[in-house]
Amino acid sequence: MTTEFEDIAKTLLNLTEEKKYSAVKDILVTLQPADVALIFDELSEENLPILFRLLPKEQAAETFVEMDDDAQELLIRSFSDSELKEVLDEMYVDDAVDLVEEMPANVVKRILRQADTETRKQINEILKYPEDSAGSIMTTEYLSFRPDMTIADAIKRIRRVGVDKETISNCYVVNDGAVLLGQITIEDIILSAEEELVRDVMEANVVCAFTVDDRELVAQNFTKYGLAAMPVVDEEHRLVGIVTVDDVMDVIQEEATEDIELMNAILPVDKPYMKTGVFESFKSRIPWLLLLMISATFTGMIITSFEEALAAQMALSAFIPMIMDTGGNSGSQASVSVIRGISLGEINFSDMPTVIWKELRVALCCSLALALANFAKLMLFDRLVMHNADITLTVALVVCLTLVFTVCVAKLVGCTLPMLAKKLGFDPAVMASPFITTIVDAISLLIYFQFASLILGL
Amino acid sequence: MTTEFEDIAKTLLNLTEEKKYSAVKDILVTLQPADVALIFDELSEENLPILFRLLPKEQAAETFVEMDDDAQELLIRSFSDSELKEVLDEMYVDDAVDLVEEMPANVVKRILRQADTETRKQINEILKYPEDSAGSIMTTEYLSFRPDMTIADAIKRIRRVGVDKETISNCYVVNDGAVLLGQITIEDIILSAEEELVRDVMEANVVCAFTVDDRELVAQNFTKYGLAAMPVVDEEHRLVGIVTVDDVMDVIQEEATEDIELMNAILPVDKPYMKTGVFESFKSRIPWLLLLMISATFTGMIITSFEEALAAQMALSAFIPMIMDTGGNSGSQASVSVIRGISLGEINFSDMPTVIWKELRVALCCSLALALANFAKLMLFDRLVMHNADITLTVALVVCLTLVFTVCVAKLVGCTLPMLAKKLGFDPAVMASPFITTIVDAISLLIYFQFASLILGL
Repeated sequence: MTTEFEDIAKTLLNLTEEKKYSAVKDILVTLQPADVALIFDELSEENLPILFRLLPKEQAAETFVEMDDDAQELLIRSFSDSELKEVLDEMYVDDAVDLVEEMPANVVKRILRQADTETRKQINEILKYPEDSAGSIMTTEYLSFRPDMTIADAIKRIRRVGVDKETISNCYVVNDGAVLLGQITIEDIILSAEEELVRDVMEANVVCAFTVDDRELVAQNFTKYGLAAMPVVDEEHRLVGIVTVDDVMDVIQEEATEDIELMNAILPVDKPYMKTGVFESFKSRIPWLLLLMISATFTGMIITSFEEALAAQMALSAFIPMIMDTGGNSGSQASVSVIRGISLGEINFSDMPTVIWKELRVALCCSLALALANFAKLMLFDRLVMHNADITLTVALVVCLTLVFTVCVAKLVGCTLPMLAKKLGFDPAVMASPFITTIVDAISLLIYFQFASLILGL
Repeated sequence: MTTEFEDIAKTLLNLTEEKKYSAVKDILVTLQPADVALIFDELSEENLPILFRLLPKEQAAETFVEMDDDAQELLIRSFSDSELKEVLDEMYVDDAVDLVEEMPANVVKRILRQADTETRKQINEILKYPEDSAGSIMTTEYLSFRPDMTIADAIKRIRRVGVDKETISNCYVVNDGAVLLGQITIEDIILSAEEELVRDVMEANVVCAFTVDDRELVAQNFTKYGLAAMPVVDEEHRLVGIVTVDDVMDVIQEEATEDIELMNAILPVDKPYMKTGVFESFKSRIPWLLLLMISATFTGMIITSFEEALAAQMALSAFIPMIMDTGGNSGSQASVSVIRGISLGEINFSDMPTVIWKELRVALCCSLALALANFAKLMLFDRLVMHNADITLTVALVVCLTLVFTVCVAKLVGCTLPMLAKKLGFDPAVMASPFITTIVDAISLLIYFQFASLILGL
């Protein structure tokens, strides 16, 4: 499929070179807007406006929405005022808001000048909500009915104004004060008798969001309740907009990407990998690398302070990487499981005792299995097969005891830190592998040297 | 919201204890099926069937679908045959398939016996598709029209059969051989004149999936094209089912969770954290822990082979954790960025040269910044402030050069391994932090001791 698509893109570029624009148009109209956008993103400054003008009005607007910032800006600069107005008129308000948020100030001014008064008002309305809130991802273009309308009235209203709305699958019922009373789906409307009243057909129990709710909560509820759209209300329960499922799918992907990045010491970038510049990637990666490098020097100081013990029993230093890595991996398994649970709304702070109790038992199982495997390896392989005289029974005992304690502490640190972070208002995703590894490294060495001095008397 | 919900759950349990069932019913009917299911999952074997029977037929079926396996099995065992049939009749086919997949054999037999012939045929149809394929997540309950029907005919057909379909927002147009010709949305139908023909209103360019396509590809296309439903066709392009967006949201969440788990050395569990038993968690975590523990002993062997050098210059061992951690973090940043890009369909194998070239430049920037910071710290803090005589200019040089090379190698290993894994048919997510860390640990030590012997002449 991808190679097929690459072939189409190549053909289009060749036809454009040869200025066979009507052939180009014939191909373009068969493609989905998102695919046309992918091709347009790669076009030269000169060709982009020419090919864009080949598209029918609706496809043009839909393609424009899918294009990347740079290509959008380039196009807007090449638009006449009336062309800009045409594209804006075809766009949904939430897409217009996204555009305004991405463009530089002078382009934004031009956009707002060309938008009609109503659209401008709606754009400004949505812009005032905090980033990542339900209000910021909603659209104000929804269909609403009064409760005393008949189904026939509702159908008439859909036919009159429905074409401009982002969805008519879910419509909403509000009173004179715009307070949300219920929801009515297009299924309900089509399947009900024409003379029935909207109030009798509507569903009064509606899952809704407040404008200030976090978009992650909105996404959780979409998944939990299997929704296609969700109404957004203000504090007085007045309907101010709706969130549609296509935007929520983007939110789910973006939130997961953000979590994965944070979990791996990367500051979120908000852009696809292939579109992120070298310096942007550098900026998103260097802060945590620096911080973790400095923290790791403390682990080094622990080694230094046990230098003499290590010099006396050099066999001990060979186990340092294995103990540190196993501790780090055990801790990050626990932390990542808990972080994901928090992100999906499955784990709350009140679950902390349950989580700790579970992790403790998992840790005991894991650590015993690891210690046994390690003991067997040391005694059977290193001692019997390899005849390594440094590996005495006491050395093996020190290593295995360290493993048991390290894994248990690592799992406990790993599962508690994300919940504490959440409670303190930090993003729990930061408490993943790199951070946990750095802490567990230090702890595991302390445990190791403690057992070494206790048992080996160093 | 969560505490509010917990209060409702408590009230319900109290009322149930006091056998005030009509009060229980009054509360239950105001709740969403997903929330009722959460409460029911916690009920005792004795109370569950009683409360379930209080629900109206439709809410009962919807709640049943949302409940966890154990509660479902318990309920089915308490159902009479006619009760089971009633619930099955209300369920959508794709939900019935999920149920059949989770239940033990004797319960499945009972379910299939109670389902009507048509449903049983459809269940068996879906069950034959491979796990995680488009066919396995589709439903066979969709609405289709012939191209020569009028819009009025279409509306009549929706009114007649629509109530049993999972969605009527997207309907499909097929010819006599069931070959997919196009898609027609409910918007198109409502907004078109009654005498128009379906063929003139429908959209012929439809994004569809083949039954054997991976569900991850289906999810990528849903997000890319902002779809609400996607038709699924066989090799002859005959329409066999549709995938709806509520199922795709689950797929997106599950795939992200699976990636995150694999990235952190956990075998995917397929269950929420709080529902996974201790032994299940143990089983999903111990294989990678063991494997990585064994691999880490090779890193230990590298240290052993440089034992004498280390003993001669003990200051060197203090830097081992810092070098290993920084290398590991740098490598996992690169690998995770690439893995996520592959999962989202943004990076293909053909992008390998671009990715490597980008990572190389990012690596140079990061490694120089880290080396400089480290050099400054060693010279200004350790030497001038702390008067640590072991930290000579040459030692600092060895450490900083090692950092530069380690970070560069780590980033290159990190970005290439996931793409190679994908090419070879493995899940790229395995090539994340733990795996990369283990490889990079060994490489960074080799680089370190190489520079140490070259510059310090050990």
